[in-house]
Amino acid sequence: MADALAQLKARLTDLHGIQDVASLLVWDQRTAMPPAGVGHRAQHLALLQRVAHERLTDPEIGRLLDEVDAGSLDPDSDDAGLLRLARRTYDKAVQVPVELRSEMAIASAEANPIWVKAKETSDFQLFLGPLERNVELRRRYIECFGQQDEPYDILLDDFEPEMKTEEVTRIFGEIKAELVPLIAELRDREVDDSFLSGHFPLDRQIALDHEVVDLFGHRPDTWRIDPTEHPFAGGAGIDDIRITTHYYEDSLKSLFSTMHEYGHGLYEHQIPRRIANLPIGTGASLGLHESQSRLWENLVGRSMPFWRFFYPRLQEVFPEQFRGVELDRFYAAVNRVRPSLIRIRADEVTYGMHVILRFELEQDIVNGRVELRDLPQAWAEKMDEYLGVEVPDDANGVLQDMHWASGLIGYFSTYLLGTVMSVQIWEKIQEDVPDLEDRIERGDFSALREWLGDNVHELGRKFTPQETLRRATGSGIDAKPYLAYLKRKYGAPVAA
Amino acid sequence: MADALAQLKARLTDLHGIQDVASLLVWDQRTAMPPAGVGHRAQHLALLQRVAHERLTDPEIGRLLDEVDAGSLDPDSDDAGLLRLARRTYDKAVQVPVELRSEMAIASAEANPIWVKAKETSDFQLFLGPLERNVELRRRYIECFGQQDEPYDILLDDFEPEMKTEEVTRIFGEIKAELVPLIAELRDREVDDSFLSGHFPLDRQIALDHEVVDLFGHRPDTWRIDPTEHPFAGGAGIDDIRITTHYYEDSLKSLFSTMHEYGHGLYEHQIPRRIANLPIGTGASLGLHESQSRLWENLVGRSMPFWRFFYPRLQEVFPEQFRGVELDRFYAAVNRVRPSLIRIRADEVTYGMHVILRFELEQDIVNGRVELRDLPQAWAEKMDEYLGVEVPDDANGVLQDMHWASGLIGYFSTYLLGTVMSVQIWEKIQEDVPDLEDRIERGDFSALREWLGDNVHELGRKFTPQETLRRATGSGIDAKPYLAYLKRKYGAPVAA
Repeated sequence: MADALAQLKARLTDLHGIQDVASLLVWDQRTAMPPAGVGHRAQHLALLQRVAHERLTDPEIGRLLDEVDAGSLDPDSDDAGLLRLARRTYDKAVQVPVELRSEMAIASAEANPIWVKAKETSDFQLFLGPLERNVELRRRYIECFGQQDEPYDILLDDFEPEMKTEEVTRIFGEIKAELVPLIAELRDREVDDSFLSGHFPLDRQIALDHEVVDLFGHRPDTWRIDPTEHPFAGGAGIDDIRITTHYYEDSLKSLFSTMHEYGHGLYEHQIPRRIANLPIGTGASLGLHESQSRLWENLVGRSMPFWRFFYPRLQEVFPEQFRGVELDRFYAAVNRVRPSLIRIRADEVTYGMHVILRFELEQDIVNGRVELRDLPQAWAEKMDEYLGVEVPDDANGVLQDMHWASGLIGYFSTYLLGTVMSVQIWEKIQEDVPDLEDRIERGDFSALREWLGDNVHELGRKFTPQETLRRATGSGIDAKPYLAYLKRKYGAPVAA
Repeated sequence: MADALAQLKARLTDLHGIQDVASLLVWDQRTAMPPAGVGHRAQHLALLQRVAHERLTDPEIGRLLDEVDAGSLDPDSDDAGLLRLARRTYDKAVQVPVELRSEMAIASAEANPIWVKAKETSDFQLFLGPLERNVELRRRYIECFGQQDEPYDILLDDFEPEMKTEEVTRIFGEIKAELVPLIAELRDREVDDSFLSGHFPLDRQIALDHEVVDLFGHRPDTWRIDPTEHPFAGGAGIDDIRITTHYYEDSLKSLFSTMHEYGHGLYEHQIPRRIANLPIGTGASLGLHESQSRLWENLVGRSMPFWRFFYPRLQEVFPEQFRGVELDRFYAAVNRVRPSLIRIRADEVTYGMHVILRFELEQDIVNGRVELRDLPQAWAEKMDEYLGVEVPDDANGVLQDMHWASGLIGYFSTYLLGTVMSVQIWEKIQEDVPDLEDRIERGDFSALREWLGDNVHELGRKFTPQETLRRATGSGIDAKPYLAYLKRKYGAPVAA
């Protein structure tokens, strides 16, 4: 058995390595690649995906999994966690014919440029065909797993393992019931944020982003920050973390986006070295990953303790913008709530409704309750109902996100699940580190970083996301702390 | 047979793709990677090498090669060229046990940091153990191919396919006989190059490098230039060319190095699209690659016609350095001959002797005619004999190049073979494009670029390097044009 386990680990290390290589290729594509290189890159990524799939579904993996006696292992051990993950991944992978995988990859690759064009011209009709194709392929994908009470579960599980549609529906229902009235209450509150627009010279923004990441903390010589179109975090392992940002000369968006990507980066950076080369050596799920990014962006980066420490520095870097602006006014401005059309520009309060809208529409799509050609109208109706916002065109509505063009149906809910979990984790840290806010106010992030390392990052992907959350916080996912936090922070006027 | 050929092509396309991915990883390692990422990178490169080797030596490749009837194909066709190359590569690969390949890769990886340290401290003793290990593994590698009249042929063939030690010895002998007296004659000629040292602000150098590459020409959106420690050319395909350079604030070295790497980049860039994803879709050999880089660096970049065109621009960019310096003086300075210790800083005339010295020592090493511990002394003796230069320490002698630490024994001669071929090619272009120099003097490089595309790059790796050279120039390798060129350019005083 020891030998079978060693053989299995060698194969799984290779698989993880191929994924790290693919991740680096994606980073390069989005930060460095000459534009014309995209054709080569698509071929190379497809090749790596095919090599990984062939190796994952090699019957020898199944044989080794059968041979290793998982029952004799301590269920908390790395090996037991690795075997659980490998079994789950293998069992799912072998149910999907390689031809279907390939069709899905090609359909996504083909849909993407059409979506770009459709968005540019704000023409949903153009995108309808590729979307139909992607949806049809997801239906065939779901069918590979046999009869399902809730077909959408299959898609969701790919992004948030073992999470069920029913549970998400329940959590999101709870959130919706509170958020819709809260937004109605906040939407007309007057907050001056005029000083957040203006001129923020790029060289100073770049230096400031590095300063913030250095302040938050990481091992030297292991990170880099690069500009890109749509920010993301990537890299090739715990010692090679690459975060990205998009600089706007007229706003500070990059600063908050960098804090967000720092959270993702830190999660991968603090994975324990002993498991770093194995499939369990990564974040537990997209949702838990988002809990880390939202924690640094919002619970740290939009908090009063952080700005008590950092606002003088910001004033020093951009004196033209902030010289006459007191801390309270700045704080109110970076926390201003205003319903708007675009998810990725939404504030902390309205963000949730953007996600809920997509989660609901995706289920309607998968269950055939909405015709795809009617999506723009369904979108507009929900935007009106949830946010009181009128959608002027498809580019600012159903075409705004790239996910469906990339075949990523089932992904969106992880954004809000992560946000919910971020507050649960934050409250547990405050219990364990009672002077957390004082520390942040002194610019000391070490206790926070270490708590996250010891209680979340340490576990890698050994357990399901919910088990990981339970071990970190003592509880499964729960929307109440998140809702209480929003009401505490936003329920009363935030500006003095 | 058509089916077997199609299957074979699919497999060979994958192999080529894996190599392109590895090439991109190397580029990233040397331009972008956070330093601590080196551990991951070594693992990932070893993984890709292993995957490629497994796929190359898959018996199915041998079966498909046997099944395809190469004899029925037009020998000039792409398919025939592909089959010849695949047969050669497969037959060589299957003779080497995968364990030995792995030992060689590990020994190189382990030797490299020790070489770095040995060079830093100028201590050859430190490097002796790893060098012995690398040499011993090369001996075992040679043994895989059975009894050899000339064991060194096996190593040479990996870098310059089908080139023989005997032929290189003959060519280098001819060169040595002419160069040694020429160098003795030129070594004391007074040439003022003081204005080539000074202050060359980096931002202006960077802009100038881009300007020169744009002037030489390429398809837009397909290239990038990045700084690195030791310049090289890489990329991930004909539409994704990455050249690199090293900027020195006090000299113009980067400009010439960029022209050199442009030559390598253009070769890969002008590979015909129809074969670009196959193993024949690359340069024919290291030697032919070097013929392209030396052509652009020396025959263009150190020529009077080029500087008649470009010197006014250089004066404009660096007026402080060149305002009072006439063209003739500048030309003499960039072509100054001075024996020196370091190969990569050598001028056009002395460069060849640096290569010949290494080629001779490598044969002595492989044939056991020199004890490795005596290498520093052997090195010093040859430096004195060939260049009249005294070697002060190992860092400036036997430890200067990374090749032996990387197990690259047999590589060096391709530098001089390439230089020799560059002149043969240049003379043929002058025959075919009689107004070549006039064009260059007008800043028009299109005819040169197109000639190289049509006559060299078009062939990719379909033929052996010598057959490629014969098709391009009508002749096999011949040192006479090279020697005549050196004597023409340097034999009489170059400055007015």
